[in-house]
Amino acid sequence: MKVTTERLSVNTHGAGDLRDITGSLQEALAKTGLQEGQLTVFVVGSTAALAMFEFEDGLIRDMQDLYERLAPRTKHYAHDDTWDDANGFSHVRAALQGQNVTIPFQAGKLLLGTWQQVVLAEFDNRQRQREIVLSFIGA
Amino acid sequence: MKVTTERLSVNTHGAGDLRDITGSLQEALAKTGLQEGQLTVFVVGSTAALAMFEFEDGLIRDMQDLYERLAPRTKHYAHDDTWDDANGFSHVRAALQGQNVTIPFQAGKLLLGTWQQVVLAEFDNRQRQREIVLSFIGA
Amino acid sequence: MKVTTERLSVNTHGAGDLRDITGSLQEALAKTGLQEGQLTVFVVGSTAALAMFEFEDGLIRDMQDLYERLAPRTKHYAHDDTWDDANGFSHVRAALQGQNVTIPFQAGKLLLGTWQQVVLAEFDNRQRQREIVLSFIGA
Repeated sequence: MKVTTERLSVNTHGAGDLRDITGSLQEALAKTGLQEGQLTVFVVGSTAALAMFEFEDGLIRDMQDLYERLAPRTKHYAHDDTWDDANGFSHVRAALQGQNVTIPFQAGKLLLGTWQQVVLAEFDNRQRQREIVLSFIGA
Repeated sequence: MKVTTERLSVNTHGAGDLRDITGSLQEALAKTGLQEGQLTVFVVGSTAALAMFEFEDGLIRDMQDLYERLAPRTKHYAHDDTWDDANGFSHVRAALQGQNVTIPFQAGKLLLGTWQQVVLAEFDNRQRQREIVLSFIGA
Repeated sequence: MKVTTERLSVNTHGAGDLRDITGSLQEALAKTGLQEGQLTVFVVGSTAALAMFEFEDGLIRDMQDLYERLAPRTKHYAHDDTWDDANGFSHVRAALQGQNVTIPFQAGKLLLGTWQQVVLAEFDNRQRQREIVLSFIGA
């Protein structure tokens, strides 16, 4: 049994930018040499989140539409009065979607379904360099 | 310390079928012989999710109603144009609810509350055989 | 590698009481002496949840407003007919927000962003003493 911590850096284009990071996670797992265990993916920061869904153009738009309906960009947020950076909607969406996922692996492969991708959801209203922590525990 | 990976198969009846899997999780934990650690429950696929709530008829209906309000079945989803399988609502609900939960255990028991069950949420528009991965890490 | 399980008790004031528990988590981590690994935070019970967001007054109100919009307190819930304790809204909010988060740590520090706090969300309609399980795995 061992634990090892890696980092993944992703440049995003601002609110609504959804990025499939599944390939990078599988590559990082291969480098650890671990065969069986769990990977926790954790995005650092308060205006991005992680989700799992089928990464295809239609569903990408559906997810963007969902976030817009649940926490509209045009709504007034009290947070905007605090900092005047107008990204209250980004914080609310990130908190609701969640910022960590834990995925089991076996035989050196993440046990994801064929149409189940791990997606970084950028909610901030500007481009960002996102740091994602990959914490592997296994044997 | 060791890691061990088990699988649970559940046949569901399609959208809105919520299944209490708590007993199966506790049984699987007992078989591992582990006393203290964490269980990660992970549902494979993109149209089912995992939630924790009090599994009683009233709340089951309330949760079904919540999902219907947040991602209505009758709404148009761009995903439906991609595959023509009309389950865009299923994907959106699954991504929002989340597909993994991690539960600590001690003295060989999951540290759940009395009214806190682990529930498989089937969102797809047809019956499915669901594969759930149980990843135990502990001693 | 070792696993260790700690508990945190928090007294809350009822629905809408959001508590920053980040400091307590970091203190508990320091006591374990672990340097690298994962902390799973798990709230026991079915009417409270855990979220991560910037803990400042504006955003606290925005999150309370989000929960009210997604699962209004004044709506009728079938759960209320079962138990007559009128907290159906509490259960629904808790199940949607989620009750566990897993956070990696390295060099003895939780790898949270500067404005990324771990928050206990009390949704019940009365004051409660909440038990939060902290499950550390690492080296």
